[in-house]
Amino acid sequence: MPPSPGAGGTVAPATLRGVSKPCAFCAVVAGDAPADVVHSGESTLAFLDASPVFHGHVLLVPRTHVTTLADLPADELPGFAALAQRLERAVETAMDAPGSLVLVNNVISQSVPHLHLHVIPRRPKDGLRFFLGPRHPYGSPNESAEVARRIAAALDAEASLR
Amino acid sequence: MPPSPGAGGTVAPATLRGVSKPCAFCAVVAGDAPADVVHSGESTLAFLDASPVFHGHVLLVPRTHVTTLADLPADELPGFAALAQRLERAVETAMDAPGSLVLVNNVISQSVPHLHLHVIPRRPKDGLRFFLGPRHPYGSPNESAEVARRIAAALDAEASLR
Repeated sequence: MPPSPGAGGTVAPATLRGVSKPCAFCAVVAGDAPADVVHSGESTLAFLDASPVFHGHVLLVPRTHVTTLADLPADELPGFAALAQRLERAVETAMDAPGSLVLVNNVISQSVPHLHLHVIPRRPKDGLRFFLGPRHPYGSPNESAEVARRIAAALDAEASLR
Repeated sequence: MPPSPGAGGTVAPATLRGVSKPCAFCAVVAGDAPADVVHSGESTLAFLDASPVFHGHVLLVPRTHVTTLADLPADELPGFAALAQRLERAVETAMDAPGSLVLVNNVISQSVPHLHLHVIPRRPKDGLRFFLGPRHPYGSPNESAEVARRIAAALDAEASLR
């Protein structure tokens, strides 16, 4: 008798889709890993980061396994973005925070290769020093104009592919 | 003769909308301040950050003056989010970067109070150490469950207001 998918144990959705190892967030979506869920929608799930930068740090994920923000299908994007707005307000309200940081790491610094949008409550002088790191100024107006030209050209090339 | 709005000089759009001082990004949108523009759309503009974290660091803004991501009107959100996806791809392609960081600061750490979404090219070991800062773990499963309950309740309260 041939082996059947899922025989002998739970198989996370990512495995079924050919991803090489089970995906930690697919396991949360499937209910196979515990999480403090704050929102459960048809195509989205939001839950507390288990290792929060600050209390109330939430992750929003699509139920479908995609890696980066750019990979999110066009039909899921508006709902995902609207949820990000609602979570921004809800996290600030619930945590009594005057501001927030909304962030997506694509590939680099992305601990789990399943798109997750962070919503992190922020307060004055909360110690997050990210933007005080070294900046890398352009050497000349010509240099920045050339970088802008390259990015604009990449945008155009992309539009013509779609 | 009564003073007329804008008499004697350029008035940035934010001033006309009752914001207390001219807005730096409204000035860019109006063409009154210089910028290396990479995209100019009907309701959006994208240009290089003048003080980039890394070369190719782009800011995406709505032409309309709003402060936070949550303030962006529902009819502008899908187009804004789609542009974020396109810029993610274009910045990575143009800068030959394997990853990117997409980020919005709401109120705290927000240098210009006009919504701007950062797209920053990322490379392995590029020195951005943001997430190695101190984490603030929950004291117990009960504590995290209570935080999740509060955020879920804030989401529900918000939905009932809309």
